[in-house]
Amino acid sequence: MRKGNLMSVRDDIKVLDATIRDGGLCNNFEFSDEFVYELYKTNIKAGVDYMEFGYKASLSMFNEADYGKWKFCKEEDIRAIVGENNSDMKIAVMADVGRCDFKTDFLPKSESVIDMVRVACYIHQIPAALEMIEHFHALGYETSCNIMAISQVPTDQVVQALETLNESSVDVIYLVDSFGSLYPENAGDFARLYYEIAEKAGKKVGFHAHNNQNLAFANTIETLSYGFSFLDVTVQGMGRGAGNCSSELLIGFLKNPKYNIYPILVFIEKYMAPLKAAGVKWGYDLQYMFTGLMNRHPREAIAFSANDRGDYANFYKELLDHD
Amino acid sequence: MRKGNLMSVRDDIKVLDATIRDGGLCNNFEFSDEFVYELYKTNIKAGVDYMEFGYKASLSMFNEADYGKWKFCKEEDIRAIVGENNSDMKIAVMADVGRCDFKTDFLPKSESVIDMVRVACYIHQIPAALEMIEHFHALGYETSCNIMAISQVPTDQVVQALETLNESSVDVIYLVDSFGSLYPENAGDFARLYYEIAEKAGKKVGFHAHNNQNLAFANTIETLSYGFSFLDVTVQGMGRGAGNCSSELLIGFLKNPKYNIYPILVFIEKYMAPLKAAGVKWGYDLQYMFTGLMNRHPREAIAFSANDRGDYANFYKELLDHD
Repeated sequence: MRKGNLMSVRDDIKVLDATIRDGGLCNNFEFSDEFVYELYKTNIKAGVDYMEFGYKASLSMFNEADYGKWKFCKEEDIRAIVGENNSDMKIAVMADVGRCDFKTDFLPKSESVIDMVRVACYIHQIPAALEMIEHFHALGYETSCNIMAISQVPTDQVVQALETLNESSVDVIYLVDSFGSLYPENAGDFARLYYEIAEKAGKKVGFHAHNNQNLAFANTIETLSYGFSFLDVTVQGMGRGAGNCSSELLIGFLKNPKYNIYPILVFIEKYMAPLKAAGVKWGYDLQYMFTGLMNRHPREAIAFSANDRGDYANFYKELLDHD
Repeated sequence: MRKGNLMSVRDDIKVLDATIRDGGLCNNFEFSDEFVYELYKTNIKAGVDYMEFGYKASLSMFNEADYGKWKFCKEEDIRAIVGENNSDMKIAVMADVGRCDFKTDFLPKSESVIDMVRVACYIHQIPAALEMIEHFHALGYETSCNIMAISQVPTDQVVQALETLNESSVDVIYLVDSFGSLYPENAGDFARLYYEIAEKAGKKVGFHAHNNQNLAFANTIETLSYGFSFLDVTVQGMGRGAGNCSSELLIGFLKNPKYNIYPILVFIEKYMAPLKAAGVKWGYDLQYMFTGLMNRHPREAIAFSANDRGDYANFYKELLDHD
């Protein structure tokens, strides 16, 4: 059932760096232009296949002044970093169902430097996601559908969603472990289910991990082994709460010589260490482990961190109280 | 091939807390008596099956004044903590081949509060380990053989070692990922090999993880799923270099209601946070990831940490230079 072994070069694999997008949830998307530009160059040198620049959030729903620019990913802001993007790396943005003015805020692909639009939705939003996917596809973009919080969805609904997506124009279907609650055995089960269904329609499958139980990397390589090709990473795992699968762990693991860990190490030293020193918080800690273990949204754990609490035992009891 | 599923209660499982022993490598075994006593009580409340108190190191090879007492685990020092150990939890100590005066330093089991002696060796020391195992067995102790650095051993030698151990009095055979270089696929392969051979002689199998690539927990539950029953943990993963599988992650995962995560959280808050604040270092970081990735001893990475270096990229290059 596994595709290849630990020595295989899997040419189908695409590494997608989501540092600005998922990491932006840790610092209100307030990255310096230098940071984003250096990350862009780093990713190219490291062999990363896609770089996600942020969200295309609705300017009517969100006040532009309240966020860094990568919450909105205006064409001119991306171009200020990448120019015409004369590289082999593709540019992605994320569009949330219900929080994106998708009909007005996207240029035709021929006029945009963006290559892929990733549509993020919950299971009940699949029909709305499909409308967006067909719109983006008609504009000429590659698309993915990132179904979030899948660990709370009954399997029959997952199957229905996958079969519905098979009939759409979507290119990539993502398994998203929003709560970091999957164990490798679960991730493997999901991976086989997703791959088996998606393969029938020639869709690619991808995985987006969260590190609540220190399993983001383990789950990522588990799904990879069962045919997943789109693999999300962030530098040093920077992402909401416990963060994501680290770029350096996955790039270190991959056997394709096109991938190169060294530029990422240089970037970490120069640009990530100051972020951490400045107090931007993310990464595995007990509060996130609890919400992962309980298969629930990390919002209380994020608040625990934001309030600099260290009373883990009390917090654990609070979480039990809520249910 | 997997034994049970994610809902199973596996009554064969034994959780072994190695915090004082492996964590002692981070602080020269200088734990306060209060720390050790509270950990002892915590482990009992948490349902931990074995607690390892440290090494029985040779008093002729090591100067007693240079180390905390848990490097030597004298009978009176253990008894000062546990009394007669009137609990369901067993007491273990580790004896290193070549660094232990095993013929003189162990009482008969009937006079000792120690239940299990874990013999740690490299593959070429198996004959020496066997001599020790038979000695400890004759004294009345449970024994394990912990073959270290297994990721650098050709498979035919692993098989020979396991078959030799099958003919001994050893109770438990441990797979030890000393360098944190195993991926879950490797760990699974090893687990099936160990289990299949050991089962023929009615031996139990165990796993000791290191967290260099953030896979200690993932590898532990992977080996568990293939029949491993002795599972080593340390509180907050405290152990040499990148540390081990965290007690709280494994206890959180296990479905047997005898295990209880809450006492561990209380202990972490009260006793582990001050250790970290005092500058005791362990846990996942890039320097350990590199040595794990390269399947080599973490000594240079430990020195990198001890020297408070942050030049990850240079260090990575230095490691490449060495080979």
